[in-house]
Amino acid sequence: MSGLRRVMVANRGEIAVRIIRACHVAGVEAVAVYSDADEHSKWVRMADEAVHIGRSAAQKSYLDPDALLKAARATEVDAVHPGYGFLAESGAFAKAIEEAGLVFIGPRPSVLEQMGDKAAARSAAASAGVPVVPGTDPIADPEDVGKMAAEIGFPLLLKAAAGGGGRGIRPVHDLDELLDALPAAQAEARSAFGDPSIYLERAVAHARHVEVQVLADDHGNVVHLFERDCSVQRRRQKLIEEAPAPDLQDSTRQAITSAAVRLAEHVGYRGAGTVEFLVDGDGNFYFIEMNARVQVEHPITEAITGVDVVAEQLRIAGGAELSMSQDSIELKGAAVELRINAEDPERGFAPTPGEITELRLPGGPGIRVDTGISQGDRISPFYDSLIAKLICWGADREEAYARARQALAEFHVEGVSSTAGLHRELTSAEDLMAGPVHTMWLEQHLGGR
Amino acid sequence: MSGLRRVMVANRGEIAVRIIRACHVAGVEAVAVYSDADEHSKWVRMADEAVHIGRSAAQKSYLDPDALLKAARATEVDAVHPGYGFLAESGAFAKAIEEAGLVFIGPRPSVLEQMGDKAAARSAAASAGVPVVPGTDPIADPEDVGKMAAEIGFPLLLKAAAGGGGRGIRPVHDLDELLDALPAAQAEARSAFGDPSIYLERAVAHARHVEVQVLADDHGNVVHLFERDCSVQRRRQKLIEEAPAPDLQDSTRQAITSAAVRLAEHVGYRGAGTVEFLVDGDGNFYFIEMNARVQVEHPITEAITGVDVVAEQLRIAGGAELSMSQDSIELKGAAVELRINAEDPERGFAPTPGEITELRLPGGPGIRVDTGISQGDRISPFYDSLIAKLICWGADREEAYARARQALAEFHVEGVSSTAGLHRELTSAEDLMAGPVHTMWLEQHLGGR
Repeated sequence: MSGLRRVMVANRGEIAVRIIRACHVAGVEAVAVYSDADEHSKWVRMADEAVHIGRSAAQKSYLDPDALLKAARATEVDAVHPGYGFLAESGAFAKAIEEAGLVFIGPRPSVLEQMGDKAAARSAAASAGVPVVPGTDPIADPEDVGKMAAEIGFPLLLKAAAGGGGRGIRPVHDLDELLDALPAAQAEARSAFGDPSIYLERAVAHARHVEVQVLADDHGNVVHLFERDCSVQRRRQKLIEEAPAPDLQDSTRQAITSAAVRLAEHVGYRGAGTVEFLVDGDGNFYFIEMNARVQVEHPITEAITGVDVVAEQLRIAGGAELSMSQDSIELKGAAVELRINAEDPERGFAPTPGEITELRLPGGPGIRVDTGISQGDRISPFYDSLIAKLICWGADREEAYARARQALAEFHVEGVSSTAGLHRELTSAEDLMAGPVHTMWLEQHLGGR
Repeated sequence: MSGLRRVMVANRGEIAVRIIRACHVAGVEAVAVYSDADEHSKWVRMADEAVHIGRSAAQKSYLDPDALLKAARATEVDAVHPGYGFLAESGAFAKAIEEAGLVFIGPRPSVLEQMGDKAAARSAAASAGVPVVPGTDPIADPEDVGKMAAEIGFPLLLKAAAGGGGRGIRPVHDLDELLDALPAAQAEARSAFGDPSIYLERAVAHARHVEVQVLADDHGNVVHLFERDCSVQRRRQKLIEEAPAPDLQDSTRQAITSAAVRLAEHVGYRGAGTVEFLVDGDGNFYFIEMNARVQVEHPITEAITGVDVVAEQLRIAGGAELSMSQDSIELKGAAVELRINAEDPERGFAPTPGEITELRLPGGPGIRVDTGISQGDRISPFYDSLIAKLICWGADREEAYARARQALAEFHVEGVSSTAGLHRELTSAEDLMAGPVHTMWLEQHLGGR
């Protein structure tokens, strides 16, 4: 059960910085990779060694399994950390890493494939006794659709079976609307996904997005690190995340965290993962999907539990047991994460790539800033537009948000437009300060923006 | 019991930044002050208003009570926060603030005077049942000195009654040495302090410096926030502080924290304060002095307890009760603070004022950096040479130090020499990593440096 000696970080930006830090704290060497655009980046400077893997377009570098595998072999690492995004949830990449005799820092390839397949993941959840949104099999005969709809009740979502990532979904409110919409939905599904299959799913009204962080080692230990509320979304893109979920009843917290652990146990999960749910106003919760990797918003969980999620990933990959038991994990205070992107909220959140000519970051008690950017760096049009994550902890939710407002007052970027101004507005919005909001709240708040 | 509306920060540097942040988080306006040298400083930029109070020499600005009082009146604040150093422990300044109808954010003036007088503080401790280092009254007749010495035992310290801050102290190991040294010590005390009085105190061998953070409100509530170990000192200047004190027995922790609370209760303390002790190898502890203000190293206590010490100072000054009870304060993990100064350890720690041409600060989980400096600022020869405090929290002492090493690897300053390199050396020093060291350890480690 020897630990890791040298890890390649197959990613870029703030998560590359995060992983390199965790490696060094664990006494593990870290190898960075970079594309043309990232040659002078912060994570390249921090790593023990850095390898150029290709052109700026992600397909030619961070999404190129062969280039990454070649870099891993050349630098003689014993493991690869995929971060999030890019190839993090590719079963094929994980398999290629393992076939090269290296450790993939994440779940087994078969589990990645299972969680990546919407129907398979839903079915796994159901057989683990985890509630899923009531839904039907794909519609075989349009004659049956009235009976099928009656079973789950309106409002409903028409969903393309082969869709995903929020695409191929239409809400309908009654049978007439359903019958009207079905042919168009089938035609659209055929053209968009090459498969006309449509199924029905209950529309969970005014739902919150609540997700549970889990950790599982190779020795049969599975724990949860409580939950996060990520309901402040625009087009399914999270802008603000909180931990714990505000005003969640203890009984719901107990049930939802147990459900997440049960699913992880059921599929033989390994590593860090997140089980995502919708929670309605009555505390009913429904499985959405499992993210089989570390998430952007993991630091708020670290803030309320004191557990270093990336350090645990390294431990697990090195064959060790989790450093803690469920009983030893305590939730303390509250934390909020603000994702500051180089986007212009006044122009439909269009990315605003360019040089960061000045960057002043906030600090003080409870404030953590995770960023892959240094002053003078460029926000590249090739990748996501994240400038920095402000993670703000307080003894309670009120203090966490008060510190977040102060952190935003200190944050200053020049050279690109950013969402910092929008965050200043949102962290003072009455609805949000009063308690939890639902996943459509931000879009309603933004109106036409 | 209305809270504060507008506070003047009668200080500079990182503690001015710290206090302004706390004011804003509490919804209180903050007024900064600045000397000629500090016109373009970070805290001036962060404050709601800033007042020029005089020339760069501290006597003409930060140590000038009249200039400060005038600024407070002109900006119509309702309270003054003195920070640490400068006039923070001046009973006369506190009294002048109160006589102007303003709130002094600290203890009552009489308590400041009592704690500032070495003999009075020691006597208060003794009458509160807090152990003091065994010592004598001033020597009236040199004939008695043998008997007096025998009562407390060798080795001893000869101490000037009017001395302070580590001056006017000579160690002696036996009676012959004592009799030899006495006349010279008396002569020196007369010339240095205008008073030849000398008394004897036991030299506590291989002692650690352990101090207890206390908070007291105006409603009779006194709590402690556990202790810090600040034994890594050079010429009584702290370089590294830790919380909690490593390897302190639970029974000693219990006894020393209770003693600190007892002293605070006994003197009618108000606000944040620190009771300093020497602790010997057997767990015996002895009162040294009480620092009647917030301390440089308060953030490590915040890191292990989650309590915002400066926010509590504001609450107390606003007439509110402490936001917590003793039972609700839990110690979690471990934290270490590294004071990075603009000093050259290879040249006797000579200050190295100058322009900070580049400043890269560390980040990530558990890392907090408190600094009053921005890149491009000058370290002024007029004030202390602190560049930044790196506060590093971990789930245990080992993780706290591992993160500290990574933070030091990320820290980069150009334009001035700094003690960062020495901290890199010390945070890997076997003696320190193995457990607690005594207050002479660093000087021995440094040898001739």
